[in-house]
Amino acid sequence: MASDHYKLIILGAGPAGLTAGLYAARARMDHLLIEKGAEGGQILLTDWIDNYPGFPEGLSGFDLAEKMAAHAKRFDLNSMFGNVLSMDLSGKPLRLELEDSNALTCDSLIICTGAHPRPLNIPGEKELTGKGVSYCATCDAPFYRNQHVAVIGGGNTAVQEASHLTKFADKVTLIHRRDELRATKILQEKAFANPKIEFIWDTTTTAVTGTEGVEGLELLNKNGDKSTLQVEGVFILVGVLPNNEMLPLELLKADSGGFIPTDLETRTAVEGVMAAGDIRSKEVRQVINAAGEGATAVLAAENYLVNLS
Amino acid sequence: MASDHYKLIILGAGPAGLTAGLYAARARMDHLLIEKGAEGGQILLTDWIDNYPGFPEGLSGFDLAEKMAAHAKRFDLNSMFGNVLSMDLSGKPLRLELEDSNALTCDSLIICTGAHPRPLNIPGEKELTGKGVSYCATCDAPFYRNQHVAVIGGGNTAVQEASHLTKFADKVTLIHRRDELRATKILQEKAFANPKIEFIWDTTTTAVTGTEGVEGLELLNKNGDKSTLQVEGVFILVGVLPNNEMLPLELLKADSGGFIPTDLETRTAVEGVMAAGDIRSKEVRQVINAAGEGATAVLAAENYLVNLS
Repeated sequence: MASDHYKLIILGAGPAGLTAGLYAARARMDHLLIEKGAEGGQILLTDWIDNYPGFPEGLSGFDLAEKMAAHAKRFDLNSMFGNVLSMDLSGKPLRLELEDSNALTCDSLIICTGAHPRPLNIPGEKELTGKGVSYCATCDAPFYRNQHVAVIGGGNTAVQEASHLTKFADKVTLIHRRDELRATKILQEKAFANPKIEFIWDTTTTAVTGTEGVEGLELLNKNGDKSTLQVEGVFILVGVLPNNEMLPLELLKADSGGFIPTDLETRTAVEGVMAAGDIRSKEVRQVINAAGEGATAVLAAENYLVNLS
Repeated sequence: MASDHYKLIILGAGPAGLTAGLYAARARMDHLLIEKGAEGGQILLTDWIDNYPGFPEGLSGFDLAEKMAAHAKRFDLNSMFGNVLSMDLSGKPLRLELEDSNALTCDSLIICTGAHPRPLNIPGEKELTGKGVSYCATCDAPFYRNQHVAVIGGGNTAVQEASHLTKFADKVTLIHRRDELRATKILQEKAFANPKIEFIWDTTTTAVTGTEGVEGLELLNKNGDKSTLQVEGVFILVGVLPNNEMLPLELLKADSGGFIPTDLETRTAVEGVMAAGDIRSKEVRQVINAAGEGATAVLAAENYLVNLS
């Protein structure tokens, strides 16, 4: 069927995918955006977004998702819900296999499947996400002025963000399951020298407690001792995982974390395939740069398509 | 004086600089944003911005500039007006020389000086910019549904955008000063095969006419013949020029067009110096990706500063 082939397929409808959809629709490209769940991606997990430029008062993640989706739809975005289980990018056309055993083909593909914070999978974590449980200090630190927060983790991100949080919070307790940090020495030295940061070693967090918001943590030392810690917020910074289960990782030359490397114009190792947003191999994962990459990816796709014979 | 040194200076207050300012201020970094003219940069030249994600109905360039500036100021952006004439990036601290013969130093610098379309410098061009004279078909093509527009230029951008414009406009007249195009063959073939595109060769445009909006063009053939062409819009696509007169181009390894190459994290060839927005060496110059790069650049600066001893 003719309708099963598109010049461009965009996979995922977070900020990168919705921006790509906006650009593709507005340019009247023959396109399809495929989303597995709700439009918005990770911003739906964020209670309040204060750093998407152009909204001086901030707005809820839900509102921004809705605005981005409405924006793309105003230009006749062609979208569907569907679950892509696997794909064959080794030849042309590119081929996507869906859960309902249908397949779609396309000349170019923009992968915007995103990522998700590695969760601890403990009681209270999911229920209080966006209500004191956060996975992004850059996003949420300013909400914790003069409060006591915990950071869970021991890598570069956890230690750097613990220092960052002391610009706002009165006290930051870093909880790490080992007796030393993995972060680089200079970050460690700064954290150790910071009087606002306390450390709890050899300890895992077994639950987040609270009803309307975070009230505390339940802790377990490796010697078996249990304790509780009162905090108003907790930043779980134990890594980010790519949503890559449907991607041919070897062909796309995924990095050791499973993220997809691209060039400056978001082109992957496979001709005609771009990647934008958090699935990209990169250091900074913010809504605004995901959106920017979505735009770049569509123009890269246009350039690719226009040069096809 | 202590106040003459900053950990981070951001140069330029277009979308990239204002986003960098927002991120730097919100992270409570010791920062200064320097702007030569009005906050907003090139978006101030754009009457209506329809493709900045999150504003489904679009908004004026002026409004977006104002919102972005207000956003950064809400987090206590530290900014000043000033004209940087030159800089010394060969040692540390980095040093900027201002027009008023003051100097500022910094540990890290984000260059967001932007670019500007190469103008034709003909009567009517400046007066009607944003009122039918456009320098960006990606931005403005959808405003010309069922109308007759001209494209001036003969390179890849001009020819590709002429094709793109036929998705909206009834008729596109491409005016080129030579008798053949510089664009790649495949773009030329597509344009020649497109019944909506007409070509006027060996001709320069000497004036844009109209009062409230563009009404037509005055043309001059190289044989001396003068003529007029009625159009509702004209896209001047004869190149983009970097705002780089204050930059040490050799040290920054500027490309042949004078733009600044960076890596994926916006780092230039000089340690501690980032570049974001249209001054970067890249293919896609849009508001949304300029903003995204501004955010990336601040986090790159933070990473650089935190690793300074």
